[in-house]
Amino acid sequence: MNGVFITFEGVEGSGKTTQLRLVADFLKGLGRDVVVTREPGGTPLAERIRRLLMENSDETMSPLAELFLYEAARAQHVNTLILPALQRGAVVLCDRFADSTTAYQGAGRRLDPAVVTRLNRLAAGEAWPFHTYVFDLCAAEGLRRARDRGSDDRMMQESLAFHDRIREEFLSLAREEQDRITMIDAARPVERIQEELRRHICGLPFMAR
Amino acid sequence: MNGVFITFEGVEGSGKTTQLRLVADFLKGLGRDVVVTREPGGTPLAERIRRLLMENSDETMSPLAELFLYEAARAQHVNTLILPALQRGAVVLCDRFADSTTAYQGAGRRLDPAVVTRLNRLAAGEAWPFHTYVFDLCAAEGLRRARDRGSDDRMMQESLAFHDRIREEFLSLAREEQDRITMIDAARPVERIQEELRRHICGLPFMAR
Repeated sequence: MNGVFITFEGVEGSGKTTQLRLVADFLKGLGRDVVVTREPGGTPLAERIRRLLMENSDETMSPLAELFLYEAARAQHVNTLILPALQRGAVVLCDRFADSTTAYQGAGRRLDPAVVTRLNRLAAGEAWPFHTYVFDLCAAEGLRRARDRGSDDRMMQESLAFHDRIREEFLSLAREEQDRITMIDAARPVERIQEELRRHICGLPFMAR
Repeated sequence: MNGVFITFEGVEGSGKTTQLRLVADFLKGLGRDVVVTREPGGTPLAERIRRLLMENSDETMSPLAELFLYEAARAQHVNTLILPALQRGAVVLCDRFADSTTAYQGAGRRLDPAVVTRLNRLAAGEAWPFHTYVFDLCAAEGLRRARDRGSDDRMMQESLAFHDRIREEFLSLAREEQDRITMIDAARPVERIQEELRRHICGLPFMAR
Protein backbone atom coordinates (compact mmCIF):
# COMPACT_ATOMS: atom_id res chain seq x y z
CA MET A 1 0.00 0.00 0.00
CA ASN A 2 1.74 3.15 -1.20
CA GLY A 3 -0.92 5.70 -0.26
CA VAL A 4 -1.63 7.51 3.00
CA PHE A 5 -4.94 7.40 4.84
CA ILE A 6 -5.77 10.45 7.00
CA THR A 7 -9.05 10.92 8.86
CA PHE A 8 -10.74 14.03 10.26
CA GLU A 9 -12.89 13.49 13.35
CA GLY A 10 -14.83 15.54 15.87
CA VAL A 11 -18.22 16.65 17.16
CA GLU A 12 -20.89 18.27 14.97
CA GLY A 13 -19.96 21.80 13.94
CA SER A 14 -16.27 21.48 14.79
CA GLY A 15 -15.19 22.65 11.33
CA LYS A 16 -13.47 19.42 10.24
CA THR A 17 -15.08 19.40 6.78
CA THR A 18 -13.89 22.94 5.99
CA GLN A 19 -10.40 22.14 7.23
CA LEU A 20 -10.27 18.89 5.25
CA ARG A 21 -11.08 20.73 2.02
CA LEU A 22 -8.36 23.31 2.68
CA VAL A 23 -5.84 20.54 3.39
CA ALA A 24 -6.87 18.85 0.12
CA ASP A 25 -6.25 22.10 -1.80
CA PHE A 26 -2.86 22.46 -0.14
CA LEU A 27 -1.79 18.91 -1.00
CA LYS A 28 -3.10 19.15 -4.58
CA GLY A 29 -1.08 22.36 -4.91
CA LEU A 30 1.98 20.27 -4.09
CA GLY A 31 1.12 17.90 -6.95
CA ARG A 32 -0.22 15.08 -4.77
CA ASP A 33 -2.93 12.64 -5.90
CA VAL A 34 -5.61 13.50 -3.31
CA VAL A 35 -8.94 11.72 -2.75
CA VAL A 36 -11.52 13.54 -0.61
CA THR A 37 -14.25 11.36 0.81
CA ARG A 38 -16.55 10.98 3.80
CA GLU A 39 -18.37 8.53 6.04
CA PRO A 40 -20.96 7.33 6.01
CA GLY A 41 -20.79 7.52 2.22
CA GLY A 42 -18.15 7.72 -0.47
CA THR A 43 -19.79 5.38 -2.99
CA PRO A 44 -23.34 5.45 -4.43
CA LEU A 45 -24.44 2.48 -2.29
CA ALA A 46 -22.78 3.85 0.86
CA GLU A 47 -24.44 7.23 0.22
CA ARG A 48 -27.82 5.45 0.07
CA ILE A 49 -27.02 3.87 3.44
CA ARG A 50 -26.08 7.37 4.66
CA ARG A 51 -29.57 8.61 3.80
CA LEU A 52 -31.12 5.83 5.91
CA LEU A 53 -28.84 6.87 8.78
CA MET A 54 -29.36 10.63 8.55
CA GLU A 55 -33.06 10.97 7.81
CA ASN A 56 -35.49 11.57 10.60
CA SER A 57 -38.14 8.85 10.66
CA ASP A 58 -41.13 7.78 12.76
CA GLU A 59 -39.48 4.40 13.31
CA THR A 60 -36.91 4.43 16.12
CA MET A 61 -33.68 2.87 14.86
CA SER A 62 -32.24 0.24 17.20
CA PRO A 63 -28.67 1.18 18.26
CA LEU A 64 -27.40 -2.17 16.99
CA ALA A 65 -29.08 -1.71 13.58
CA GLU A 66 -27.47 1.74 13.44
CA LEU A 67 -24.04 0.25 14.19
CA PHE A 68 -24.46 -2.42 11.49
CA LEU A 69 -25.52 0.22 8.93
CA TYR A 70 -22.42 2.32 9.63
CA GLU A 71 -20.23 -0.78 9.27
CA ALA A 72 -22.00 -1.80 6.04
CA ALA A 73 -21.33 1.64 4.55
CA ARG A 74 -17.71 1.43 5.78
CA ALA A 75 -17.05 -2.03 4.32
CA GLN A 76 -18.41 -0.88 0.95
CA HIS A 77 -16.43 2.39 1.07
CA VAL A 78 -13.17 0.68 2.05
CA ASN A 79 -13.40 -2.00 -0.63
CA THR A 80 -14.72 0.14 -3.45
CA LEU A 81 -12.94 3.46 -2.96
CA ILE A 82 -10.39 3.71 -0.13
CA LEU A 83 -8.27 0.59 -0.72
CA PRO A 84 -8.02 1.05 -4.51
CA ALA A 85 -6.97 4.70 -3.96
CA LEU A 86 -4.34 3.72 -1.36
CA GLN A 87 -3.07 0.96 -3.63
CA ARG A 88 -2.39 3.43 -6.44
CA GLY A 89 -0.58 5.71 -3.97
CA ALA A 90 -3.13 8.47 -3.31
CA VAL A 91 -3.51 10.55 -0.16
CA VAL A 92 -7.03 9.73 1.06
CA LEU A 93 -8.61 12.39 3.30
CA CYS A 94 -11.75 11.06 4.97
CA ASP A 95 -14.34 13.11 6.84
CA ARG A 96 -15.16 10.79 9.79
CA PHE A 97 -14.20 7.11 10.02
CA ALA A 98 -14.12 4.37 12.67
CA ASP A 99 -13.37 6.73 15.60
CA SER A 100 -16.76 8.36 15.01
CA THR A 101 -18.40 4.95 15.38
CA THR A 102 -16.50 4.40 18.64
CA ALA A 103 -17.66 7.81 19.87
CA TYR A 104 -21.28 7.89 18.59
CA GLN A 105 -22.36 4.24 18.77
CA GLY A 106 -20.07 3.25 21.66
CA ALA A 107 -20.09 6.25 24.02
CA GLY A 108 -23.21 7.94 22.57
CA ARG A 109 -25.54 4.95 22.22
CA ARG A 110 -23.75 3.02 25.00
CA LEU A 111 -23.20 -0.13 22.91
CA ASP A 112 -20.52 -2.52 24.23
CA PRO A 113 -17.19 -0.82 23.29
CA ALA A 114 -15.57 -4.22 22.60
CA VAL A 115 -18.29 -5.03 20.03
CA VAL A 116 -17.91 -1.62 18.36
CA THR A 117 -14.12 -2.03 18.17
CA ARG A 118 -14.42 -5.54 16.72
CA LEU A 119 -16.88 -4.48 14.01
CA ASN A 120 -14.84 -1.35 13.21
CA ARG A 121 -11.76 -3.49 12.62
CA LEU A 122 -13.73 -6.00 10.56
CA ALA A 123 -15.24 -3.32 8.29
CA ALA A 124 -12.01 -1.30 7.95
CA GLY A 125 -9.81 -4.30 7.16
CA GLU A 126 -6.51 -3.07 5.71
CA ALA A 127 -7.63 0.54 5.71
CA TRP A 128 -6.63 1.77 9.16
CA PRO A 129 -5.87 5.52 9.43
CA PHE A 130 -2.22 6.40 9.36
CA HIS A 131 -3.02 9.69 11.07
CA THR A 132 -6.17 11.24 12.55
CA TYR A 133 -7.01 14.83 13.47
CA VAL A 134 -9.66 15.24 16.17
CA PHE A 135 -11.28 18.68 16.13
CA ASP A 136 -12.19 19.51 19.69
CA LEU A 137 -14.95 21.95 20.59
CA CYS A 138 -17.43 22.06 23.43
CA ALA A 139 -20.52 20.18 22.30
CA ALA A 140 -22.96 23.06 22.94
CA GLU A 141 -20.93 25.45 20.75
CA GLY A 142 -20.58 22.81 18.01
CA LEU A 143 -24.33 22.15 17.96
CA ARG A 144 -25.02 25.90 17.81
CA ARG A 145 -22.70 26.24 14.79
CA ALA A 146 -24.19 23.17 13.09
CA ARG A 147 -27.76 24.46 13.59
CA ASP A 148 -26.76 27.89 12.27
CA ARG A 149 -25.72 26.27 8.99
CA GLY A 150 -29.04 24.36 8.83
CA SER A 151 -28.12 20.85 10.05
CA ASP A 152 -31.07 18.96 11.50
CA ASP A 153 -30.30 15.30 10.80
CA ARG A 154 -31.06 12.40 13.14
CA MET A 155 -27.95 12.91 15.30
CA MET A 156 -28.80 16.59 15.74
CA GLN A 157 -32.01 15.53 17.53
CA GLU A 158 -30.03 13.94 20.35
CA SER A 159 -29.52 15.56 23.76
CA LEU A 160 -26.58 17.74 24.77
CA ALA A 161 -25.56 14.95 27.20
CA PHE A 162 -25.28 12.57 24.21
CA HIS A 163 -23.02 15.01 22.34
CA ASP A 164 -20.99 15.64 25.51
CA ARG A 165 -20.30 11.90 25.82
CA ILE A 166 -19.08 11.92 22.21
CA ARG A 167 -16.69 14.81 22.82
CA GLU A 168 -15.33 13.07 25.93
CA GLU A 169 -14.80 9.85 23.96
CA PHE A 170 -12.85 11.66 21.24
CA LEU A 171 -10.65 13.24 23.96
CA SER A 172 -10.11 9.87 25.56
CA LEU A 173 -9.21 8.23 22.20
CA ALA A 174 -6.69 11.03 21.59
CA ARG A 175 -5.08 10.39 24.99
CA GLU A 176 -4.89 6.62 24.36
CA GLU A 177 -3.47 6.85 20.85
CA GLN A 178 -1.15 9.82 20.90
CA ASP A 179 0.96 8.55 18.00
CA ARG A 180 -1.99 8.32 15.63
CA ILE A 181 -4.26 11.11 16.86
CA THR A 182 -3.55 14.85 16.98
CA MET A 183 -5.97 17.06 18.91
CA ILE A 184 -6.90 20.31 17.22
CA ASP A 185 -8.41 23.17 19.24
CA ALA A 186 -11.36 23.99 16.98
CA ALA A 187 -12.41 27.14 18.86
CA ARG A 188 -9.83 29.22 16.97
CA PRO A 189 -10.18 31.05 13.61
CA VAL A 190 -10.19 28.89 10.45
CA GLU A 191 -6.86 30.30 9.22
CA ARG A 192 -4.99 29.57 12.47
CA ILE A 193 -6.26 25.99 12.51
CA GLN A 194 -5.31 25.46 8.87
CA GLU A 195 -1.81 26.80 9.53
CA GLU A 196 -1.32 24.29 12.34
CA LEU A 197 -2.67 21.44 10.19
CA ARG A 198 -0.40 22.23 7.23
CA ARG A 199 2.61 22.46 9.49
CA HIS A 200 1.76 19.11 11.08
CA ILE A 201 1.08 17.37 7.76
CA CYS A 202 4.41 18.59 6.38
CA GLY A 203 6.06 16.67 9.21
CA LEU A 204 4.37 13.36 8.36
CA PRO A 205 6.77 10.81 6.81
CA PHE A 206 4.86 10.48 3.50
CA MET A 207 5.64 14.15 2.71
CA ALA A 208 9.33 13.25 2.41
CA ARG A 209 8.55 10.81 -0.42
CA MET B 1 -40.84 -14.85 26.61
CA ASN B 2 -44.18 -16.59 26.16
CA GLY B 3 -44.27 -16.70 22.36
CA VAL B 4 -42.81 -19.16 19.88
CA PHE B 5 -40.42 -18.25 17.10
CA ILE B 6 -40.50 -20.51 14.01
CA THR B 7 -38.45 -19.89 10.87
CA PHE B 8 -38.83 -21.15 7.29
CA GLU B 9 -35.61 -21.57 5.33
CA GLY B 10 -34.45 -22.92 1.99
CA VAL B 11 -33.18 -22.15 -1.50
CA GLU B 12 -34.97 -19.86 -3.95
CA GLY B 13 -38.18 -21.35 -5.30
CA SER B 14 -38.48 -24.02 -2.59
CA GLY B 15 -42.04 -22.98 -1.73
CA LYS B 16 -41.37 -21.89 1.85
CA THR B 17 -43.36 -18.66 1.56
CA THR B 18 -46.49 -20.48 0.33
CA GLN B 19 -46.16 -23.08 3.08
CA LEU B 20 -45.60 -20.41 5.75
CA ARG B 21 -48.86 -18.67 4.77
CA LEU B 22 -50.79 -21.95 4.91
CA VAL B 23 -49.33 -22.71 8.35
CA ALA B 24 -50.34 -19.21 9.50
CA ASP B 25 -53.93 -19.81 8.33
CA PHE B 26 -53.96 -23.14 10.13
CA LEU B 27 -52.74 -21.64 13.44
CA LYS B 28 -55.08 -18.64 13.19
CA GLY B 29 -57.92 -21.12 12.68
CA LEU B 30 -56.96 -22.60 16.04
CA GLY B 31 -57.31 -19.16 17.64
CA ARG B 32 -53.58 -18.46 17.95
CA ASP B 33 -52.08 -14.95 17.82
CA VAL B 34 -49.90 -15.36 14.69
CA VAL B 35 -47.39 -12.85 13.27
CA VAL B 36 -46.18 -13.47 9.70
CA THR B 37 -42.97 -11.69 8.78
CA ARG B 38 -39.88 -12.04 6.61
CA GLU B 39 -36.19 -11.25 6.31
CA PRO B 40 -34.69 -9.08 5.23
CA GLY B 41 -37.60 -6.82 6.15
CA GLY B 42 -40.48 -6.83 8.59
CA THR B 43 -40.35 -3.13 9.53
CA PRO B 44 -40.37 -0.05 7.25
CA LEU B 45 -36.65 0.59 7.84
CA ALA B 46 -35.72 -3.07 7.40
CA GLU B 47 -37.77 -3.15 4.16
CA ARG B 48 -35.74 -0.18 2.91
CA ILE B 49 -32.57 -2.12 3.68
CA ARG B 50 -34.13 -5.07 1.81
CA ARG B 51 -34.46 -2.92 -1.30
CA LEU B 52 -30.74 -2.07 -1.16
CA LEU B 53 -30.00 -5.80 -0.88
CA MET B 54 -32.33 -7.03 -3.62
CA GLU B 55 -31.96 -4.42 -6.34
CA ASN B 56 -29.57 -4.98 -9.18
CA SER B 57 -27.04 -2.15 -9.37
CA ASP B 58 -23.95 -1.16 -11.34
CA GLU B 59 -21.96 -1.00 -8.11
CA THR B 60 -20.73 -4.42 -6.95
CA MET B 61 -21.65 -4.89 -3.31
CA SER B 62 -18.77 -6.09 -1.15
CA PRO B 63 -19.64 -9.41 0.58
CA LEU B 64 -18.88 -7.86 3.97
CA ALA B 65 -21.14 -4.84 3.30
CA GLU B 66 -23.85 -7.30 2.27
CA LEU B 67 -23.42 -9.24 5.54
CA PHE B 68 -23.62 -6.03 7.62
CA LEU B 69 -26.78 -4.92 5.77
CA TYR B 70 -28.51 -8.25 6.49
CA GLU B 71 -27.53 -7.96 10.16
CA ALA B 72 -28.71 -4.33 10.33
CA ALA B 73 -32.12 -5.34 8.96
CA ARG B 74 -32.19 -8.27 11.42
CA ALA B 75 -31.31 -6.17 14.49
CA GLN B 76 -34.06 -3.69 13.59
CA HIS B 77 -36.59 -6.46 12.90
CA VAL B 78 -35.81 -8.33 16.13
CA ASN B 79 -36.02 -5.24 18.33
CA THR B 80 -39.00 -3.59 16.68
CA LEU B 81 -41.22 -6.51 15.73
CA ILE B 82 -40.11 -10.03 16.73
CA LEU B 83 -39.24 -9.53 20.42
CA PRO B 84 -42.35 -7.46 21.22
CA ALA B 85 -44.52 -10.11 19.50
CA LEU B 86 -42.83 -12.96 21.40
CA GLN B 87 -43.17 -11.04 24.67
CA ARG B 88 -46.93 -10.77 24.25
CA GLY B 89 -47.09 -14.51 23.51
CA ALA B 90 -47.53 -14.60 19.72
CA VAL B 91 -46.44 -17.34 17.34
CA VAL B 92 -43.96 -15.58 15.00
CA LEU B 93 -43.51 -17.25 11.60
CA CYS B 94 -40.53 -15.77 9.78
CA ASP B 95 -39.66 -16.31 6.10
CA ARG B 96 -35.84 -16.65 6.28
CA PHE B 97 -33.69 -15.74 9.28
CA ALA B 98 -30.09 -16.26 10.47
CA ASP B 99 -29.65 -19.66 8.78
CA SER B 100 -30.06 -17.93 5.41
CA THR B 101 -27.18 -15.62 6.32
CA THR B 102 -25.05 -18.62 7.26
CA ALA B 103 -25.92 -20.24 3.92
CA TYR B 104 -25.81 -17.23 1.55
CA GLN B 105 -23.08 -15.03 3.08
CA GLY B 106 -21.07 -17.87 4.66
CA ALA B 107 -21.21 -20.71 2.14
CA GLY B 108 -22.37 -18.63 -0.86
CA ARG B 109 -20.06 -15.60 -0.54
CA ARG B 110 -17.39 -17.62 1.32
CA LEU B 111 -17.12 -15.19 4.25
CA ASP B 112 -15.51 -16.62 7.41
CA PRO B 113 -18.24 -18.84 8.96
CA ALA B 114 -17.14 -17.86 12.50
CA VAL B 115 -17.68 -14.17 11.67
CA VAL B 116 -21.11 -14.87 10.16
CA THR B 117 -22.15 -16.90 13.23
CA ARG B 118 -20.95 -14.19 15.62
CA LEU B 119 -22.82 -11.41 13.82
CA ASN B 120 -25.95 -13.57 13.48
CA ARG B 121 -25.99 -14.12 17.25
CA LEU B 122 -25.33 -10.44 17.93
CA ALA B 123 -28.18 -9.27 15.66
CA ALA B 124 -30.66 -11.95 16.78
CA GLY B 125 -30.03 -11.45 20.50
CA GLU B 126 -32.85 -13.11 22.47
CA ALA B 127 -34.74 -14.04 19.32
CA TRP B 128 -33.30 -17.44 18.43
CA PRO B 129 -35.65 -19.77 16.50
CA PHE B 130 -37.35 -22.40 18.62
CA HIS B 131 -37.91 -24.47 15.50
CA THR B 132 -36.84 -24.20 11.85
CA TYR B 133 -38.13 -25.89 8.70
CA VAL B 134 -35.62 -26.17 5.86
CA PHE B 135 -37.30 -26.69 2.47
CA ASP B 136 -34.94 -28.80 0.41
CA LEU B 137 -34.97 -28.79 -3.36
CA CYS B 138 -32.22 -29.14 -5.95
CA ALA B 139 -30.94 -25.64 -6.70
CA ALA B 140 -31.52 -25.85 -10.47
CA GLU B 141 -35.19 -26.80 -10.00
CA GLY B 142 -35.66 -24.04 -7.36
CA LEU B 143 -34.14 -21.42 -9.67
CA ARG B 144 -36.38 -22.57 -12.53
CA ARG B 145 -39.48 -22.21 -10.34
CA ALA B 146 -38.36 -18.81 -9.03
CA ARG B 147 -37.70 -17.53 -12.57
CA ASP B 148 -41.09 -18.84 -13.72
CA ARG B 149 -42.79 -16.61 -11.14
CA GLY B 150 -40.72 -13.62 -12.30
CA SER B 151 -37.94 -13.38 -9.67
CA ASP B 152 -34.81 -11.65 -10.93
CA ASP B 153 -33.29 -10.01 -7.84
CA ARG B 154 -29.57 -9.73 -7.10
CA MET B 155 -29.26 -13.27 -5.70
CA MET B 156 -30.97 -14.69 -8.80
CA GLN B 157 -28.04 -13.38 -10.89
CA GLU B 158 -25.62 -15.72 -9.12
CA SER B 159 -24.31 -18.95 -10.63
CA LEU B 160 -25.82 -22.39 -10.14
CA ALA B 161 -22.64 -23.31 -8.20
CA PHE B 162 -23.42 -20.49 -5.74
CA HIS B 163 -26.96 -21.78 -5.21
CA ASP B 164 -25.67 -25.37 -4.91
CA ARG B 165 -23.34 -24.30 -2.08
CA ILE B 166 -26.34 -22.74 -0.33
CA ARG B 167 -28.40 -25.91 -0.60
CA GLU B 168 -25.48 -27.97 0.74
CA GLU B 169 -25.07 -25.57 3.68
CA PHE B 170 -28.76 -25.86 4.59
CA LEU B 171 -28.43 -29.67 4.51
CA SER B 172 -25.35 -29.50 6.68
CA LEU B 173 -27.04 -27.17 9.21
CA ALA B 174 -29.98 -29.59 9.39
CA ARG B 175 -27.62 -32.49 10.13
CA GLU B 176 -25.79 -30.48 12.83
CA GLU B 177 -28.92 -29.20 14.59
CA GLN B 178 -31.42 -32.03 14.35
CA ASP B 179 -33.37 -30.88 17.41
CA ARG B 180 -34.05 -27.43 16.01
CA ILE B 181 -34.21 -28.08 12.26
CA THR B 182 -36.65 -30.29 10.35
CA MET B 183 -35.88 -31.02 6.70
CA ILE B 184 -38.84 -30.84 4.35
CA ASP B 185 -38.67 -32.50 0.93
CA ALA B 186 -39.92 -29.59 -1.20
CA ALA B 187 -40.20 -31.59 -4.44
CA ARG B 188 -43.64 -32.93 -3.44
CA PRO B 189 -47.09 -31.38 -4.04
CA VAL B 190 -48.05 -28.35 -1.90
CA GLU B 191 -50.82 -30.24 -0.08
CA ARG B 192 -48.59 -33.15 0.93
CA ILE B 193 -45.95 -30.78 2.32
CA GLN B 194 -48.56 -28.78 4.23
CA GLU B 195 -49.98 -31.97 5.75
CA GLU B 196 -46.54 -32.95 7.03
CA LEU B 197 -45.92 -29.44 8.41
CA ARG B 198 -49.25 -29.30 10.26
CA ARG B 199 -48.65 -32.73 11.75
CA HIS B 200 -45.17 -31.70 12.90
CA ILE B 201 -46.28 -28.36 14.33
CA CYS B 202 -49.07 -30.08 16.31
CA GLY B 203 -46.32 -32.05 18.05
CA LEU B 204 -44.36 -28.95 19.17
CA PRO B 205 -44.63 -28.30 22.94
CA PHE B 206 -46.26 -24.85 22.57
CA MET B 207 -49.33 -26.47 20.96
CA ALA B 208 -50.12 -28.17 24.29
CA ARG B 209 -50.44 -24.75 25.99
